Amino acid sequence: MATINENFLKLQAGYLFPEISRRIRYFQAKNPDAKIISLGLGDVTKPLAPAIIKAMKKAIVDMGSEAGFRGYGPEQGYDFLVNAIIENDFNPRGVELDKSEIFVSDGAKCDTGNIQEIFGLDNVVAVTDPVYPVYVDTNVMAGRTGRANQNGQYERIVYMPCTAENNFIPELPSGSVDIIYLCFPNNPTGAVATKEILSKWVNYARTNKAIILFDAAYEAFITDTHIPHSIYEVDGAREVAIEFRSFSKTAGFTGVRCAFTVVPKQLKAYTKDGRAVEANSLWHRRHSTKFNSASYISQAGAAAAYTAEGKKQCRQTIDIYMANAALILESLTRLGYQVYGGVNAPYIWMKTPETLSSWDFFDRLLQKANVVGTPGAGFGPSGEGYFRLTAFAKPHDVKEAMERFATV
Amino acid sequence: MATINENFLKLQAGYLFPEISRRIRYFQAKNPDAKIISLGLGDVTKPLAPAIIKAMKKAIVDMGSEAGFRGYGPEQGYDFLVNAIIENDFNPRGVELDKSEIFVSDGAKCDTGNIQEIFGLDNVVAVTDPVYPVYVDTNVMAGRTGRANQNGQYERIVYMPCTAENNFIPELPSGSVDIIYLCFPNNPTGAVATKEILSKWVNYARTNKAIILFDAAYEAFITDTHIPHSIYEVDGAREVAIEFRSFSKTAGFTGVRCAFTVVPKQLKAYTKDGRAVEANSLWHRRHSTKFNSASYISQAGAAAAYTAEGKKQCRQTIDIYMANAALILESLTRLGYQVYGGVNAPYIWMKTPETLSSWDFFDRLLQKANVVGTPGAGFGPSGEGYFRLTAFAKPHDVKEAMERFATV
Repeated sequence: MATINENFLKLQAGYLFPEISRRIRYFQAKNPDAKIISLGLGDVTKPLAPAIIKAMKKAIVDMGSEAGFRGYGPEQGYDFLVNAIIENDFNPRGVELDKSEIFVSDGAKCDTGNIQEIFGLDNVVAVTDPVYPVYVDTNVMAGRTGRANQNGQYERIVYMPCTAENNFIPELPSGSVDIIYLCFPNNPTGAVATKEILSKWVNYARTNKAIILFDAAYEAFITDTHIPHSIYEVDGAREVAIEFRSFSKTAGFTGVRCAFTVVPKQLKAYTKDGRAVEANSLWHRRHSTKFNSASYISQAGAAAAYTAEGKKQCRQTIDIYMANAALILESLTRLGYQVYGGVNAPYIWMKTPETLSSWDFFDRLLQKANVVGTPGAGFGPSGEGYFRLTAFAKPHDVKEAMERFATV
Repeated sequence: MATINENFLKLQAGYLFPEISRRIRYFQAKNPDAKIISLGLGDVTKPLAPAIIKAMKKAIVDMGSEAGFRGYGPEQGYDFLVNAIIENDFNPRGVELDKSEIFVSDGAKCDTGNIQEIFGLDNVVAVTDPVYPVYVDTNVMAGRTGRANQNGQYERIVYMPCTAENNFIPELPSGSVDIIYLCFPNNPTGAVATKEILSKWVNYARTNKAIILFDAAYEAFITDTHIPHSIYEVDGAREVAIEFRSFSKTAGFTGVRCAFTVVPKQLKAYTKDGRAVEANSLWHRRHSTKFNSASYISQAGAAAAYTAEGKKQCRQTIDIYMANAALILESLTRLGYQVYGGVNAPYIWMKTPETLSSWDFFDRLLQKANVVGTPGAGFGPSGEGYFRLTAFAKPHDVKEAMERFATV
């Protein structure tokens, strides 16, 4: 008899976004004329940069010719992309990386979801609360947790609350944890971490032989020059941190699919009897056994994002999104809301008014303003009483959404 | 202290293809003038069909315009592709499928590697010997096996020998197994299964509440009209079989990345206490939590493979590969080799001469003829004494390789 992985039965019913879609569909069916504006899902709306389009068209011409055709690519990614990554994202910030430390993939969701496979089931996992649900759900599926309590929090996961009271920066855990997921600039709160904050975490990890899984998918949105873009800008981080990057938000690749993960050679995890093993070799084995390289066309496009032209064009798009963020911050502040994030991140995290629950505010906003956001409670109990808006919509939609907010 | 997944330490040292690459590099370094011809790796060489190129170019133009841009796609795949799959691959063969039973992905290697995650660690897994290593290695990583013996076979995996004696069709296991990997047309032996053979397996699975993981990545190479292309052509298979398909070999997508998996709604697996659970809902949860849809461009290209033009062009390419296979079969037969496969599959499975071991024959062929193939032992102990050649090289290379074979 084929049995199922019963850990799947521990998962909470709805992943956040399907539930949002369900409520939108229900509302739209009852109000077919309502023009709904979504500031909910973290998906980009601007077209790809012309330099990227040009490079992908060329890649397709290659694929149509005998001489240019490419079959299976190198599982870790093409050198042309890996080199561009190192030379543009890391070297200018004083971070040296070897090609073998970069693993190109089809998405940071996949990478942050799959990375836990190389670690033992006995590790104690720590996540922030609120948190991107993928970190938690993938550990639940793997069997690294117990059941969920009534708050939706799982036994054996250490939740680190992030609220206005601690500026959305988690305290170090009081006990010992083994694997720590951090995301800065943060989804959903938009908070960023200074070098001092990251140093504190790196030191914690070094002291406890813990590993930091650092999601830097939103680093391109950092505007303050003193905020690190990579955790490797902090001394010692190479020994304890894996970093996840993505072209999804940086270059508009949510539909194109390309990302990468950095696993430094110095980073070690341990057998139960204390023998050190290179995490890089484990991830290499996982990557080459269960993955077969990202599309050549996607990689060609990603590399073009690093050309002078590509950088300038991607920056223009990011500037548009950040102008949206500024408009949201300014409008909501003027309306008397308490708002956070939105300066170094494409996410605006707001307090719900009148102590409304985050789902109640979702419903009110949908019904009164036909505007969709994301209920903070969807990201964890400490997200209750908060609401996430994203800066990725089209500027005229953001403008109209802000006008409608005034009527709520 | 962060611990590793110690199951990774059970894995055999080299995945087959890296070891082949190492030996080629070593030989080429010592013989820089040798013009090596590879009939080894199962990678295609012909450019993409013009209809596919055209569709992908259009998709890229879409991605560069405000109106046409697409962000995150539906996690299960775009309707335009899913509908084309059902209407072209299944309906004409009498197989009805619902859209929700198709999961588009970035590759069959990923899907066949990841599918085991939805099943319990207590399942007994059966594989053929020889076998595509991904099926085994991913179960080792998950902890579903013990250690490997000196033959490289893992405790708790049931190996079903496939040799010339049984026409490379495995016998039903004598004991009870829970999850069975089958691949027809087979990689590496090129064997195919008739409806009668598949029925036997479907009946076994129904009787034992087992699940068949059916890899049909090479179905497009079937030439005999009585050979089923899908396991769902067999009555009752929907209750017990998951089928994997790929555009890699069918449409030359090894570098483009697109595949799909069929998980029928009727297919159930069980909790330890015997409650039936839909495998479809588990895979849906896995897919939407750890994957973020295949590239829009790849999906647009895949859909074009189903247009009248695309079908004709893909068929022309497959015909070229199958002409290669025919030439290999004919040449090697003439030279007195015992050869199998190559009629309904792009793989030719040959007996090594003079009871040479498969790696010894690899070395002899490399040194004497500068031709690369794949040692059968790399696919399992029953592959010892056999050697795999693929039909995916360019015709003039195949011709030259066959001439050189005469000198070995």
